[in-house]
Amino acid sequence: MAEEAAVRAQAETVRRLKQDKADPDEIAKEVAKLLEMKAQLGADEGKPKFVLKTPKGTRDFGPKEMAIRERAFKAIISCFKRHGAEVIDTPVFELKETLTGKYGEDSKLIYDLKDQGGELLSLRYDLTVPFARYLAMNKITNIKRYHIAKVYRRDNPAMTRGRYREFYQCDFDIAGQFDPMIPDAECLKIVHEILSDLQLGDFVIKVNDRRILDGMFAVCGVPDSRFRTICSSVDKLDKVPWEEVRSEMVGEKGLSPEAADRIGEYVQLHGGLDLIERLLQDPKLSQNKLAKEGLGDMKLLFEYLTLFGITGKISFDLSLARGLDYYTGVIFEAVLLQQENERVEEPVSVGSVAGGGRYDGLVGMFDPKGRKVPCVGVSIGIERIFSILEQRLEASEEKVRTTETQVLVASAQKKLLEERLKLISELWDAGIKAEMLYKKNPKLLNQLQYCEDTGIPLVAIVGEQELKDGVIKLRIVATREEVNVRRESLVEEIRIRTSQC
Amino acid sequence: MAEEAAVRAQAETVRRLKQDKADPDEIAKEVAKLLEMKAQLGADEGKPKFVLKTPKGTRDFGPKEMAIRERAFKAIISCFKRHGAEVIDTPVFELKETLTGKYGEDSKLIYDLKDQGGELLSLRYDLTVPFARYLAMNKITNIKRYHIAKVYRRDNPAMTRGRYREFYQCDFDIAGQFDPMIPDAECLKIVHEILSDLQLGDFVIKVNDRRILDGMFAVCGVPDSRFRTICSSVDKLDKVPWEEVRSEMVGEKGLSPEAADRIGEYVQLHGGLDLIERLLQDPKLSQNKLAKEGLGDMKLLFEYLTLFGITGKISFDLSLARGLDYYTGVIFEAVLLQQENERVEEPVSVGSVAGGGRYDGLVGMFDPKGRKVPCVGVSIGIERIFSILEQRLEASEEKVRTTETQVLVASAQKKLLEERLKLISELWDAGIKAEMLYKKNPKLLNQLQYCEDTGIPLVAIVGEQELKDGVIKLRIVATREEVNVRRESLVEEIRIRTSQC
Repeated sequence: MAEEAAVRAQAETVRRLKQDKADPDEIAKEVAKLLEMKAQLGADEGKPKFVLKTPKGTRDFGPKEMAIRERAFKAIISCFKRHGAEVIDTPVFELKETLTGKYGEDSKLIYDLKDQGGELLSLRYDLTVPFARYLAMNKITNIKRYHIAKVYRRDNPAMTRGRYREFYQCDFDIAGQFDPMIPDAECLKIVHEILSDLQLGDFVIKVNDRRILDGMFAVCGVPDSRFRTICSSVDKLDKVPWEEVRSEMVGEKGLSPEAADRIGEYVQLHGGLDLIERLLQDPKLSQNKLAKEGLGDMKLLFEYLTLFGITGKISFDLSLARGLDYYTGVIFEAVLLQQENERVEEPVSVGSVAGGGRYDGLVGMFDPKGRKVPCVGVSIGIERIFSILEQRLEASEEKVRTTETQVLVASAQKKLLEERLKLISELWDAGIKAEMLYKKNPKLLNQLQYCEDTGIPLVAIVGEQELKDGVIKLRIVATREEVNVRRESLVEEIRIRTSQC
Repeated sequence: MAEEAAVRAQAETVRRLKQDKADPDEIAKEVAKLLEMKAQLGADEGKPKFVLKTPKGTRDFGPKEMAIRERAFKAIISCFKRHGAEVIDTPVFELKETLTGKYGEDSKLIYDLKDQGGELLSLRYDLTVPFARYLAMNKITNIKRYHIAKVYRRDNPAMTRGRYREFYQCDFDIAGQFDPMIPDAECLKIVHEILSDLQLGDFVIKVNDRRILDGMFAVCGVPDSRFRTICSSVDKLDKVPWEEVRSEMVGEKGLSPEAADRIGEYVQLHGGLDLIERLLQDPKLSQNKLAKEGLGDMKLLFEYLTLFGITGKISFDLSLARGLDYYTGVIFEAVLLQQENERVEEPVSVGSVAGGGRYDGLVGMFDPKGRKVPCVGVSIGIERIFSILEQRLEASEEKVRTTETQVLVASAQKKLLEERLKLISELWDAGIKAEMLYKKNPKLLNQLQYCEDTGIPLVAIVGEQELKDGVIKLRIVATREEVNVRRESLVEEIRIRTSQC
C-alpha cells in the first residue's frame, strides 16, 4: 500500500531529523505529521477512528433547509426593522459566572467549556441574559434591538418537533423607562405581524400578567411560599384538563380543596376587555393591590391593541403562567391552532411559536449598584416554525430554488470555453447572477438539463455564427423559446426577463 | 435593607417547606432561589460576584459595528450568489475526533467543551473541515457553496489588528471533478470582485502552486525531509528581507549555502505569463515533473484570468507558501497595498485579507474508503476588513444610521397618543418602517431631536386640526419643509420621499 510506504518514509524523516539534532519545533511538526498519517492509515484499513455525524441534538442545514431558513428570517427581520429596531450581536460564550444564578434549575442544561487555562466559559443559554449583561456593561438605559443567534441547551432533543440542543432564537426587546404598556403593546403587534406574514395558519396570542397571577393566588388563599409550585400546576392547563391539575394541587401539593376550587374558577376564564372589566369589579381581586395594578395595565394594553386592530387574535387567559422566575409584568405566548381540515388526533393547540413578557429586574442583577432598566421583549421560536415550513414544503411538492442564478452561459459547439469565460465575466461585472459548467466542452443537453435541475430560467448560448453576427442566443428554459439578442443589449434583456431591476 | 428581609423570608419559606415535607423538587427550586438571592445580596453589598466583561478575545457588536458588518456581508454574499453558490450551515461544535489530526500543531488552539457526559465536543476551528465532514457524511461529490459563520481559536488575540478568538470566516468553495483551473480561476475572480466592491484600496493577489514549490525545492537540492521547514522560511519573505531568510535556512536549518542561493534566485521572482513561460523553459525546473505540471496549470490559469480581465492585480509569486499542510495545488493570498498618500511607517503590504487554494485530499480523510472529492476555495478575512471599514468610518465622520426607520409618528399637542397609535399601526401594516416615542405626551422638540439623532428623514405629525381636515402634516427633517398630505396618500408619499418602492 502506497500509504504505508508514505508512513515509513515519514518515520524515516523523523528519525533523520532527530539524528541531525534538528530544530525541536521542526521535529515536533514532523512527529505530528507522522501521527496524523498513522491515524489516517488506521482509517484506511477499515478501522475508521471517527464516526461521521454531527453532535447529538444538532444538525447541518443543507441548501434546501437554508432556503427555508432564510425565507423565515427575512420575514422576521423585516418586521423587526419595520419597528425601528437596531441589531446587536454578542459572543457565543460568556463567562460562566455571567450565566450563574439566572436560570434556576435549568442551569444544569448549560454547556460549559473545558478549563484549558484562563477564564471559565459557558455557551449562552438564551439571548436575554447576554442582552442584560450588554446593557449593564455599557450602561445603556434605552435601546430597542433585535438579536438573532444560536443558543445552546443540553436538553433532551426531540428533533422532529423542532427541539434541538443548538437552536436559533429571534429576540426583539425594548429597554427603557417609558409610559406603561406602549412598548408591551408593540411586542404583541410584532408577534401578530410575524405570524400573519409567515402564514402559519390560525393562531391565538394568550396574555396574562404576573401581578394578576400573584394577586389571584393571594385572594384564593394560597400561602405565599406556594405561589410558584401552584403556578407550575396552572401552567399545565394547556395540556391537561382542570380536574387533573386540581388533583395535583390538592393531592401532591397539599393545597386546600377550597383554595383549589377558587383558583379553578379563575384560571378557566379567558376573554377580552369584558373579562378585564368583570375582574376589576370582582369583590376579591379588586381588593388586592397587585391584581388591581395588573388588571389596570391589562385594560390599557387591550385599549392599545384595539387601536392596532389585533384584539381578534388576543386572549386574556388567566391560565397562562410561563417562566415566572424571569417576568415581572405582562407575559404572553402565541400558539398555533389546529387547522379545521387537518384530521390529526392532537389537541387543538399545536404548540407555542413565540413568547415573551416584561422583565424589569434582570439588568439590575448585573449592575453593581443594582440600577434597574425596565425591559419587555419577545422571542420567536423559529425552530418550530422551520419544522412547519419544511413539512409544508414537503407536502406541497413545490420545488425550492437554492440559488438565485439568472442565466447559464452555455455553448452548442466545442472549443468555445474562452468565449464562455469572456461572456460570463461580462455578465458578472454587470451584476448578473451567472453560472457555467466547469467543462471545456460540455454537451448542450447537459447544460440544459442543469438548468432544469436547478431552476435557472435563462440560457445564454454562445455559437460560432452568433459570435460573427455580434449576437447571443438567449433561450427561455420554461418555454424553450430562443431569441437572438445583440451582445450589448444582453444584460438589459436578462434583467427584464428575470425582472430584477 | 429590603433585600435582606426578602432573603430572610425566603429562608423561612425553605424551612417551612422542609418541615411540611413538601415535594423535593419544590424544595430544590426554593433553595435555588434562596442561593440566588443571597448571591445577589452579596453583589448589592458592593462585593459583586462577577466581572462585567466578554470573554478574552471576544467582543460585542453594538448597532454601529453591526451596520458596518452587515454592509460588508452584503457585498460578500451578493458576490457569492452572483456566482451561483448555494449556502449551508453546520453546528458551532463538532465531535472532537472530527477535528483531530487536521490542523497539525495548531490543534492546541482548539476550544474543547467540558465532558458533561455524552459525546466529547470541540468548537469548530475553521469552516473547511466541517465542510469536508459534511460532504463525506452526505456523500456529496459536487457542490458550490458558501458558508459565513464564526470560528474559534484559543490564539493570542490582537484585537486592534482584527485578530480575535471568536471571528467570522466567509468561505466559498467549489467541490467536484472538473476540467483544470476553471473553478480555480473563478475563486480568484471572486476575490477580485469582493475587494474591488468593498473599496479597500489597492490590492494584489499573489498566486503560486504547491507543486511548483515542491519542484523548486527538489531542483535546488533541498532534501525531501526539509521541504516543509524550508518552505516555512520562504513564507516569511513578505515580512523580512531575503538575506535574513537565507541565514535562517543556512544557519538554523542546516541547508547548504548553494541550495539556499539557488532558492533565493527563484523566490525573488514574481510576474505574470512572461515569468511562467520563462520558468517553463528553465533548464532545471522544466525537468521536474511536479513543477512542470504546476507551471502548465499556472499558464492555463493566467489565460483564464486574462479572459476575466483581472491579471493587472494578479502576481505569480514564487515566495508565496501558505498553509501547505492543507493544499495540493494552486494557492493564493490577497494583500492590501499601502496607499501612496498614507505616510505610515509600515511595509508596503498591510496584510492578508483573503486566501485560499486547492485541497484535493481533505474530504478523502473522512471517507471510510478514502474516496477523494477535489476542492478549491477561498476564505475572506472579514475581521481585518471590519477593522479597516471601522477605522475609515471613524476618520470620515460619516454618520452611520443603525436603523432604517422612514418616519417618526409624532404629535404637536397633548392627548393624541391614541391617534398616534392608530396611524403608526396603519403605516406598519402598509410596510412602512415607523417609530414613535413611547410617551403619552412627548414634546414636539424631543420628537424632532430624536429624528436628528437617529437620522429618521420624515416626521408624520398628528394634530387636532389636521385630523378634522383628514390630513397629516409631513415634515422633511433635512429641510424643515412641512406639507399637508391627505391621509389616504400618506403611505405613497412616504414611499416616494424615501424612494423605497
